[in-house]
Amino acid sequence: MGGAMVRKRYLDLLPLDEARARFLAACGELGALSPREEEVDVRDALGRAASREVRARIPAPPAPCAAMDGYAVKSADTFGAKPSSPVILEEGDFLPVDTGNPIPPPFDAVVPVEEAGEVPGGIEVRRAVAPGQHVRAAGEDFPEGVTVVAAGGIFTPEAVAACLATGNETVWVKRRPELLFIPTGSELVPPGAPLREGEVYETNSVIFRGYVERWGGEVEVHPIVPDEPGLLERALRGALQEDYDLICISAGSSKGRGDHTPELLSRLGELVFHGVAMAPGKPTLFGVVEGRPVLGLPGYPVSLWVALMQFVYPLLAEYYGVSLGRGERVEGVLTRRVRSALGTREFVRVRIEGDAGDARITPLPGGSSRLSTLISADGILEVPEEVEFIPKGERIEVERLPSW
Amino acid sequence: MGGAMVRKRYLDLLPLDEARARFLAACGELGALSPREEEVDVRDALGRAASREVRARIPAPPAPCAAMDGYAVKSADTFGAKPSSPVILEEGDFLPVDTGNPIPPPFDAVVPVEEAGEVPGGIEVRRAVAPGQHVRAAGEDFPEGVTVVAAGGIFTPEAVAACLATGNETVWVKRRPELLFIPTGSELVPPGAPLREGEVYETNSVIFRGYVERWGGEVEVHPIVPDEPGLLERALRGALQEDYDLICISAGSSKGRGDHTPELLSRLGELVFHGVAMAPGKPTLFGVVEGRPVLGLPGYPVSLWVALMQFVYPLLAEYYGVSLGRGERVEGVLTRRVRSALGTREFVRVRIEGDAGDARITPLPGGSSRLSTLISADGILEVPEEVEFIPKGERIEVERLPSW
Repeated sequence: MGGAMVRKRYLDLLPLDEARARFLAACGELGALSPREEEVDVRDALGRAASREVRARIPAPPAPCAAMDGYAVKSADTFGAKPSSPVILEEGDFLPVDTGNPIPPPFDAVVPVEEAGEVPGGIEVRRAVAPGQHVRAAGEDFPEGVTVVAAGGIFTPEAVAACLATGNETVWVKRRPELLFIPTGSELVPPGAPLREGEVYETNSVIFRGYVERWGGEVEVHPIVPDEPGLLERALRGALQEDYDLICISAGSSKGRGDHTPELLSRLGELVFHGVAMAPGKPTLFGVVEGRPVLGLPGYPVSLWVALMQFVYPLLAEYYGVSLGRGERVEGVLTRRVRSALGTREFVRVRIEGDAGDARITPLPGGSSRLSTLISADGILEVPEEVEFIPKGERIEVERLPSW
Repeated sequence: MGGAMVRKRYLDLLPLDEARARFLAACGELGALSPREEEVDVRDALGRAASREVRARIPAPPAPCAAMDGYAVKSADTFGAKPSSPVILEEGDFLPVDTGNPIPPPFDAVVPVEEAGEVPGGIEVRRAVAPGQHVRAAGEDFPEGVTVVAAGGIFTPEAVAACLATGNETVWVKRRPELLFIPTGSELVPPGAPLREGEVYETNSVIFRGYVERWGGEVEVHPIVPDEPGLLERALRGALQEDYDLICISAGSSKGRGDHTPELLSRLGELVFHGVAMAPGKPTLFGVVEGRPVLGLPGYPVSLWVALMQFVYPLLAEYYGVSLGRGERVEGVLTRRVRSALGTREFVRVRIEGDAGDARITPLPGGSSRLSTLISADGILEVPEEVEFIPKGERIEVERLPSW
């Protein structure tokens, strides 16, 4: 029956934690995690991470200005003023100011509007002010040279505003890692065209791009590669000529005839692992070719999603130095028993009803081929390797899916 | 001294909850919250809200396909097969398939690769399969006509993928509300140019735009308007010709000479409230002119930030039907006492050290003019109106600021 009938077996399944550790360690050694940077207009830095600290080039505020509405005065002129014996200032010896207005020399204090009043030819001051009182000194917010945004910090809207206020028109940000996504499968066609018999729309790239861009990566999607070893090899060799931080091959990582990825990685480089003890997402594989990390992702959409969360997100989080925090934890009662394979980390999609602490948590039926179960899920129940059964009624904790 | 010396007083300060309720009610009545929609390419709908439900135009998968790697067969041919007495199928009576491959008629089941083997001239099947076994039926994920994304749902990456898989190239999304931001202040200049004496960079628009766009709004920034009543009136009249859902005037809402906004709103329309019993953010005001809501925002950056969170965010959340959820709550011990004015809702910036539940929470000094205190804050302590003192050592709960 020839080569078309040759079947492959998974290598030994690796526990998830070990697989992820090997993946991250290899990416680290290969430089996919080393900092690179670029200079951008600070307005375009919103949401990005500073690769260098930003210091104030000019102080903010740049010069003394009024901290209250009132009258700029020379404080010495007001000494001794009190409600019972106000001091009269003539025109020229004061300046009406509103909050934020500059306080030009020789003025050095502001008498608040509540403590002064108009009189013919000038104002009366009913309370003395000290030098600098009710005045924001130059650099009160950011003295010249001070750190405005620390290295590694995220440019929030207020950080961008602070950079502009301190004379920083451009800033250095961590370059976005560049990931290539290669969809494979002879049955796949790009969405949009009418489907011919046996054809299916390729939509995994949409899931991949959506999440990776959200996490600060840049994504290029390769044209669909049919299930022929020569074509995948050509695509991979082409990708290696470019400077991608991570090459991802979608599907082709299972054990079917058309699944050439493991073979190809073994032949051109090193297959680090093939198969992870997690469900969904078992067919995830990882290899290194010409010093470049190559991740093989499962073809079923829910499996792809789990692999994205468990491998690609941690890579980007580590690159940006973000803590690998968990999503919101919700406690509640399991409404239906859960069975899970011993030795496998299982990610069960659940529906969460009611308030946290007292929620009803219902596992959703449906296999990893069903995108619909992911769309209708509110959260994920992670079943550890050593657990094979959780009874109905058990109090459990799940992670709520972000609302995006 | 003439008009330049005229001072105004705040109207009575309104409690925050009442002010916000009036603001939202008025925006609702004026139509700023009524649903509008537009049709977009589904790939551009990522993160946006569906204004109509999306139904499957075609089933997904579009036709039966293999759920496992193996051999497509006619199930009837395998009846009676068991390991001890396998059934032999000849070429033409089976088709090697990988997961996802189409199952053309007359085949109606898949024998997994583990339960079949090659023999000369064909395969032996060691276990019978039932009709449809190991086959994903057409529409298994999404039957034709089923709801793929509910009205109001957010287009996550997996939802976009599902729309494409079910033949939906375009979708209807809620139109982004359009907000105008009018910065006012004679001392303000756009960032970038060298500062002349008395000039300050206008950066509040950066904070406004950053947050509002994040919340799904569209922002137009008006050129800076100097503190002259005629100019602000002209700007406002111009804005009323356009179709903004909300007009925001930054600064000019305090009680200084240059603060013409309340006067202008009273003259051209109705001043609904002027001054909110919150700190920072007291000078927030709201009015209605020619049926259009006009929000006056404070000029100090931290005050602006509080007003954004307390008024503009709730407006957008209500428009999108998002729950007005709180951020992550962190419990801990206050390391320094906090004083707050009775009758005022106070928002104290705090630093959070240590783990939630056992955190050390330190109030940050510095007034609402200091953007630096917002950048270095980890969270916000909300002090209710009836509390004027929280002792050092008290166990409190604060809200962690989002990491953006």
